[in-house]
Amino acid sequence: MATPLQANPAVAQVRAYLQSLQARITEAIEAIEAAQPGGARFLADGWEKPPGEKLQGQGLTKILEDGRVFERAGCGFSHVSGPQLPPSATQHRPELAGAPFEAMGVSLVFHPRNPYVPTVHMNVRMIAAAPAGAAATCWFGGGMDLTPYYGFEEDAVHFHRSCQGALAPFGEQLYPRFKTWCDEYFYLKHRGEQRGVGGIFFDDFAELGMQRSQAMLQSVGDAFLDAYLPIVQRRMAMPYGERERQFQRYRRGRYVEFNLVWDRGTHFGLQSGGRSESILLSMPPQAAWSYQRQDPPGSPEAELLTRFLVRRDWL
Amino acid sequence: MATPLQANPAVAQVRAYLQSLQARITEAIEAIEAAQPGGARFLADGWEKPPGEKLQGQGLTKILEDGRVFERAGCGFSHVSGPQLPPSATQHRPELAGAPFEAMGVSLVFHPRNPYVPTVHMNVRMIAAAPAGAAATCWFGGGMDLTPYYGFEEDAVHFHRSCQGALAPFGEQLYPRFKTWCDEYFYLKHRGEQRGVGGIFFDDFAELGMQRSQAMLQSVGDAFLDAYLPIVQRRMAMPYGERERQFQRYRRGRYVEFNLVWDRGTHFGLQSGGRSESILLSMPPQAAWSYQRQDPPGSPEAELLTRFLVRRDWL
Repeated sequence: MATPLQANPAVAQVRAYLQSLQARITEAIEAIEAAQPGGARFLADGWEKPPGEKLQGQGLTKILEDGRVFERAGCGFSHVSGPQLPPSATQHRPELAGAPFEAMGVSLVFHPRNPYVPTVHMNVRMIAAAPAGAAATCWFGGGMDLTPYYGFEEDAVHFHRSCQGALAPFGEQLYPRFKTWCDEYFYLKHRGEQRGVGGIFFDDFAELGMQRSQAMLQSVGDAFLDAYLPIVQRRMAMPYGERERQFQRYRRGRYVEFNLVWDRGTHFGLQSGGRSESILLSMPPQAAWSYQRQDPPGSPEAELLTRFLVRRDWL
Repeated sequence: MATPLQANPAVAQVRAYLQSLQARITEAIEAIEAAQPGGARFLADGWEKPPGEKLQGQGLTKILEDGRVFERAGCGFSHVSGPQLPPSATQHRPELAGAPFEAMGVSLVFHPRNPYVPTVHMNVRMIAAAPAGAAATCWFGGGMDLTPYYGFEEDAVHFHRSCQGALAPFGEQLYPRFKTWCDEYFYLKHRGEQRGVGGIFFDDFAELGMQRSQAMLQSVGDAFLDAYLPIVQRRMAMPYGERERQFQRYRRGRYVEFNLVWDRGTHFGLQSGGRSESILLSMPPQAAWSYQRQDPPGSPEAELLTRFLVRRDWL
């Protein structure tokens, strides 16, 4: 694959990091499944875009379906390049619009079965673009955010503390900035609702220089399992019934709405000829819609909206 | 409500037509439900946008949920106006971009419970825009299309014949043109799949003059029940099991993908501050996603893709 950065050793390093991160995370999820009778495993599906398509590249899609703890868990690595950076890929670097580009990342969404265990999303990515004859510019993006169906303050606090801890070595101002950015990004404008309790989000990031910015990206990736698994362990055995499952399906409908209507990555991917099944790993196994659902005030379903899906300082 | 066309008698006429069309269609659906023990009724939800919002207007949302024959059936009338026509609303009239506009229409999506009964969509709408100091321009849009989960040639043929019949009085060339337009519009680019077996679609239509164009719109609206109900009657008692329901949920996921990713009306509505719950009447009651589902060649599920979700001459 001819890419702007083919010969750059930093790229090979980021690539190796991302591949090992995917392996580490999916192994940890499989270990949780393996501890359950009838636990599921990830299917690993390597793919390569045939030459001649608009986007070139390859990836490894890992997907676990119908597990005991995870109903649908997708974790993809991809490394693609294209002749023209789409405008949606960077809002802040107009000088690179239309330049050949290269992008690689790990992206995951885990949808647990138990409605008391929150859905989680994490993404770490590097993008590089090089206009003809110029040196390549690299930048980083990503973050993680938590989407509970039933809210627990201690889970939101733990998740946010983990995010803060991952960023602290790189500057005290990063967490509050990226936390606010996450609240702004994961917002369903057409519903007036946050997607979840937030976390961190950043994009077009290179201000610490290539090396420190890359180290920050890796610190975020490395923090993921400690941010999420304790929450899974704490909630996965809580008893639930059809009421909680129904509410979970309903709220998963919002997850679908966000990803298909507002998420830049999903739009960029689907409209630029990305691999649909890999992009749509984020879809829940099931979702439901019903007209103007109203939950009784004071119920945990109503409190999700009023106490958790709002912009709050969780620390 | 101050609108560009407030005083225009043709507008009042179209409005009255649309309101009676909504009543006629929802009554026919209720009659089918009423013939079943425990059949459901439509909830009628009148709404009005409070003054001061970007879009003004009002509407009547009718929704039937959890019926015996229809699992979710939404049929909305709306009449809105705004200070600035969004670019997505007309691709062919750049001179009107940004002009005050007014739009009214009836839009419906019916999701039956029995997987052998296809989902259907119909929409008829009028848009008018008037740049400052100029006379208003009116145009029409809409159509209907059928989305089976299990394909039956006679259903597709009947539906297309009905569409052809509705358009024939206005010119022999309209049906083939609008049929092709429908195939092009209801196409999931990221999947390389048609949404269903098609029907007719038109937009920015005014070429027959205001009066004849309006008559054509009404002919399409009037044809809907005869196009769809005989198919419902023919299929609604067919026995089915969990296999068919599962496939239906999976294919409904495609319906969600089309509407949220590609449908201009949905995007225009959600992004311009339309009423989410009314716009999302089109969502199925339940949808499911699974990774790279493969159906055995020759099975009815596989044949849906190879024989029905392709561009075909159904007459």
